[in-house]
Amino acid sequence: MVLTAVLDYVGVATFAMGSTVRARDRRLDLVSAALLGTVAGIGGGTLRDLALDRPVFWLQAPGYLYVCVGAATLMWFVGAGPRRRQTLLFLDALGISAFAVVGALIARDEGVVAPVAVVMGILTATCGGILRDVLAGERAVLVRKDVYVSVAMLSALVFVVAVELGLPQVPAAIAGAAVGTVLRVLAITRRWQLPPPPRT
Amino acid sequence: MVLTAVLDYVGVATFAMGSTVRARDRRLDLVSAALLGTVAGIGGGTLRDLALDRPVFWLQAPGYLYVCVGAATLMWFVGAGPRRRQTLLFLDALGISAFAVVGALIARDEGVVAPVAVVMGILTATCGGILRDVLAGERAVLVRKDVYVSVAMLSALVFVVAVELGLPQVPAAIAGAAVGTVLRVLAITRRWQLPPPPRT
Amino acid sequence: MVLTAVLDYVGVATFAMGSTVRARDRRLDLVSAALLGTVAGIGGGTLRDLALDRPVFWLQAPGYLYVCVGAATLMWFVGAGPRRRQTLLFLDALGISAFAVVGALIARDEGVVAPVAVVMGILTATCGGILRDVLAGERAVLVRKDVYVSVAMLSALVFVVAVELGLPQVPAAIAGAAVGTVLRVLAITRRWQLPPPPRT
Repeated sequence: MVLTAVLDYVGVATFAMGSTVRARDRRLDLVSAALLGTVAGIGGGTLRDLALDRPVFWLQAPGYLYVCVGAATLMWFVGAGPRRRQTLLFLDALGISAFAVVGALIARDEGVVAPVAVVMGILTATCGGILRDVLAGERAVLVRKDVYVSVAMLSALVFVVAVELGLPQVPAAIAGAAVGTVLRVLAITRRWQLPPPPRT
Repeated sequence: MVLTAVLDYVGVATFAMGSTVRARDRRLDLVSAALLGTVAGIGGGTLRDLALDRPVFWLQAPGYLYVCVGAATLMWFVGAGPRRRQTLLFLDALGISAFAVVGALIARDEGVVAPVAVVMGILTATCGGILRDVLAGERAVLVRKDVYVSVAMLSALVFVVAVELGLPQVPAAIAGAAVGTVLRVLAITRRWQLPPPPRT
Repeated sequence: MVLTAVLDYVGVATFAMGSTVRARDRRLDLVSAALLGTVAGIGGGTLRDLALDRPVFWLQAPGYLYVCVGAATLMWFVGAGPRRRQTLLFLDALGISAFAVVGALIARDEGVVAPVAVVMGILTATCGGILRDVLAGERAVLVRKDVYVSVAMLSALVFVVAVELGLPQVPAAIAGAAVGTVLRVLAITRRWQLPPPPRT
């Protein structure tokens, strides 16, 4: 499916570049930066494929590896000023949402029930970044207070519900990715946070 | 087998609830708490299934996901005072032991030799909590000084040895879970620790 | 293939022992030390096998587990003075290079293209140590400044290129392992580091 391939490559490249900007801020060398970028780019999809017991996607399509290493290397050399960081943040919003939709779509194709497809969307979208943070020894995204996992959940949910309601996959995927991207951008610009637990 | 299903659900729910109490203490939002609870509940079994190359257990039985999310959500709203924490600590002891037995039992059914079955028991019982700690950026259970991995090892060992000696699976499973639970409770109440390495 | 089995066991034992020396320095108990040593010894190969969707190597060859637990236990009791640490550091250089070659060799046998085989070599050689560091809550090898991932990459690359050029596997494997070991030893003794990113 052309749409998912496009969404997938956008997500992979964006995650690898965003990851390299951080690695660069920490003055990491090119090899470490490229490795962390690759983990961020393909980590989530790898875990999804392992959990679904399907062939890991980049084994037969090494183009994903080249995109990760290429995007990370480029970004390592050129760096990113404030405007480029801004752009990356918005691309990242698209990346999360795209990954969530792709993950849910692939999971549905493997025949799992709808809630499991949503979980696979969340896993695809968030685990690359989580793995990258864990490997780099950074504070994992999970305990940061911004709306991130929720974006993945919403994108996957919109897609799965739309398909269950009879919408074809392409408009459902576009709807899921769009809703998630908008939510993420709003969450960033308006500094939205989820509420803390009630005091008892 | 009914017994292992019961042990399994008890373990999953307990791990998810215990994890949520901690997440709540750190003032994490509901989505993060539910995700960490789910990781704690199903993480160990997921790794076991991946290593044994069998279908990941919650793909076909999404009830495990509902239990995790439900237990975590409930606990996030109601919280836990000292008495409930006490109860959870004892349920957790049962959960570790139950997971260790279930892991070893499943591994034996897949035809591995006894020592590998014990390792699978340890992996099933400990990896959920370890993953949760790693994701949450907490000090991992491995380098804390309490008796935890040893409990999993003992439970799996008792079960495997009992079965190898000819005992049927049900009494062997009960024996393994009981011995581990007792050891863990004793270790907590008497503050048992394993000795440090000898000075040389 | 006898050569890869030898390389593999050397790598596994070395990684388990090196890991235990560190665990001992942190005064960890025997169970934690043995578990971390086992993770360091077999973690990389396990991830490689999962990614390639082949049976996890130690399931059918539990000798690897015995070597890990045995080597870790021995080292935990006897400890390591300066000279033994020196020896371990050099054995570790051989271990990284050997794992990288074995990983690339196995990946090629599974029919992946050359760049993916190199990635599998890197993954095999580095993920055991990375997992160990993450579990132990130590600063992961990725963000340390010494030449480590590069050694794995070079070993795998030399092997894959040599085989693609028509060399038989045994001399190609020896060449890859030798080049990596020499690079690592030079990097340690001369304190080589990769350069930081350019300022922009």
